[in-house]
Amino acid sequence: MTVGNYKNPCSIGIDFGGTSVKIGALSEMLSDENKDPRILITSDYDSVQSLITAMVNVVNELRDEKKNIVTLGCGVPGLVDFELGHIHTLTNVPGWNDVPFREMLEERLKIPIFVDNDANCMAYAEFRYGAAKGCSNVVALTLGTGIGGGLIIGGKLYRGTGFAAGELGNHSIDYRGPENTYGLRGALECYMGNRQICELAKERFDGRQEPVGGWNPQIVTSLAIEGDPIAIEIWNQVAEWLASALASTAWLLNPDAFVIGGGIACAGDFLFDPLRKKINNQVSDVIAKDLKIVPAHFGKEAGIIGSAAQALDKYNQG
Amino acid sequence: MTVGNYKNPCSIGIDFGGTSVKIGALSEMLSDENKDPRILITSDYDSVQSLITAMVNVVNELRDEKKNIVTLGCGVPGLVDFELGHIHTLTNVPGWNDVPFREMLEERLKIPIFVDNDANCMAYAEFRYGAAKGCSNVVALTLGTGIGGGLIIGGKLYRGTGFAAGELGNHSIDYRGPENTYGLRGALECYMGNRQICELAKERFDGRQEPVGGWNPQIVTSLAIEGDPIAIEIWNQVAEWLASALASTAWLLNPDAFVIGGGIACAGDFLFDPLRKKINNQVSDVIAKDLKIVPAHFGKEAGIIGSAAQALDKYNQG
Repeated sequence: MTVGNYKNPCSIGIDFGGTSVKIGALSEMLSDENKDPRILITSDYDSVQSLITAMVNVVNELRDEKKNIVTLGCGVPGLVDFELGHIHTLTNVPGWNDVPFREMLEERLKIPIFVDNDANCMAYAEFRYGAAKGCSNVVALTLGTGIGGGLIIGGKLYRGTGFAAGELGNHSIDYRGPENTYGLRGALECYMGNRQICELAKERFDGRQEPVGGWNPQIVTSLAIEGDPIAIEIWNQVAEWLASALASTAWLLNPDAFVIGGGIACAGDFLFDPLRKKINNQVSDVIAKDLKIVPAHFGKEAGIIGSAAQALDKYNQG
Repeated sequence: MTVGNYKNPCSIGIDFGGTSVKIGALSEMLSDENKDPRILITSDYDSVQSLITAMVNVVNELRDEKKNIVTLGCGVPGLVDFELGHIHTLTNVPGWNDVPFREMLEERLKIPIFVDNDANCMAYAEFRYGAAKGCSNVVALTLGTGIGGGLIIGGKLYRGTGFAAGELGNHSIDYRGPENTYGLRGALECYMGNRQICELAKERFDGRQEPVGGWNPQIVTSLAIEGDPIAIEIWNQVAEWLASALASTAWLLNPDAFVIGGGIACAGDFLFDPLRKKINNQVSDVIAKDLKIVPAHFGKEAGIIGSAAQALDKYNQG
């Protein structure tokens, strides 16, 4: 594969989601201006080939604008063999099973391509440019519909033996708890996924008029800001569940940072204050001393930045 | 530091325990004959200096016998800064706080010394020469009075930011469970430490004549071998607790091996059969596919082998 020899080589990141595919150049995503990525609507494309063609076209447009693009990274919502760039299966994107994605993109784009799980890309973005910059051992989480996670160990992304590491949503906090589809009891995701928090709010605010469209984490946070004790207590309860999983993880990995992003992290201090207190109360001083528990720096742009940064770092390492 | 240039360099390992200090040469410990290490009784020495002098004397005897000793490793039961070889504190060995152990030994022995936590040494022994040989990502556990653990990540010992990683005994399996001294609820150690298993046996065998010296894991295993359903059920219960912690750990790390040693692992298939079944029933196929769940290969010699092997590998890496 031949790529030019540039003074300031740049990379492109693709954040491949079930709803949309976002594409941007790393330098632009990290600059203060011009942060908007190009967007494709995933469901507009009814085949793997047609979506890949659309991606290739957008990437080539970006390469026409920026001549120093030397590599491309892509984060995908599912299980991928990072070494081969082979997608096993994608959650919420029908038809994407057993796709030699890296091979297909490299054939058309003629630059090195790296394909990784989206939670790993988010972790890498935070580690390289975000809330965990300067750290070596990082556990990054996204709290949303589900709970995703990525691990940095010794300054490198750790993917596990079968590229399936980091699944903190399947951390059991109660061995006698409710069973999920894997037969796992008490999985964190069964307590504090987005839907579960809405149900918790409905239950705790029992008797109160339900908001139009139902309860959601943002409304609970708005009420907490107004001082509503039930809303504050809901975030305390979520912090208790999360602290149980993260305290165990801290005992296991003795990390220097937990970085927490995703929709539920919008609760801010209502979540982070009790969370920090509860985790630090459950670990030794040696572990607490080095551990920061911080909100993610990046939002929706994390996937593009993380995938593009991984690709560029690999390129620069030769 | 000057060490000779040998064709077959060899190392010495010290397994520093609360009861005894065991010292041996790696080549001898790995050979089929002459496996007995030299033993010092820890409580015979009332100061740090006197115990170190005794260790140095034994090591020098071994060096007189084997001329190719180039380095020495030591596993200690407590928190140690691996980079500096500085012991912060040892569990069950009074007076060993803030000891510059590496420095003190190197001054007298004039060979490179490496000091690590004993559970890390056990993990390294299993990874290099034992049940996890050929694996890259290993979680090793010792089930005894307490529960210790060591991690191999990407073919290297992973110690964590403050050298405190691997503490699986403090993995919570119930966020509302009993509180331990750290304020952690539902710590695995509170369910299945040696003492807790004895209590569990006493409770489950309620009404039956208590054995001389009380119930212990070995007696429960003997009864299980005889087909006693209560004894079998006790090991099923222990497997359920352990499986909960290890399933979460498998989701997090996607390792290729769990290696389990220590007194409680003597239950053999009565523990391992339900354990494998319960873990595999709680993780995805991708994770289960690569994961072996095996008894430790080494017994009491693991500490000497692991510390000596670490030292020799570091020496050979230059």
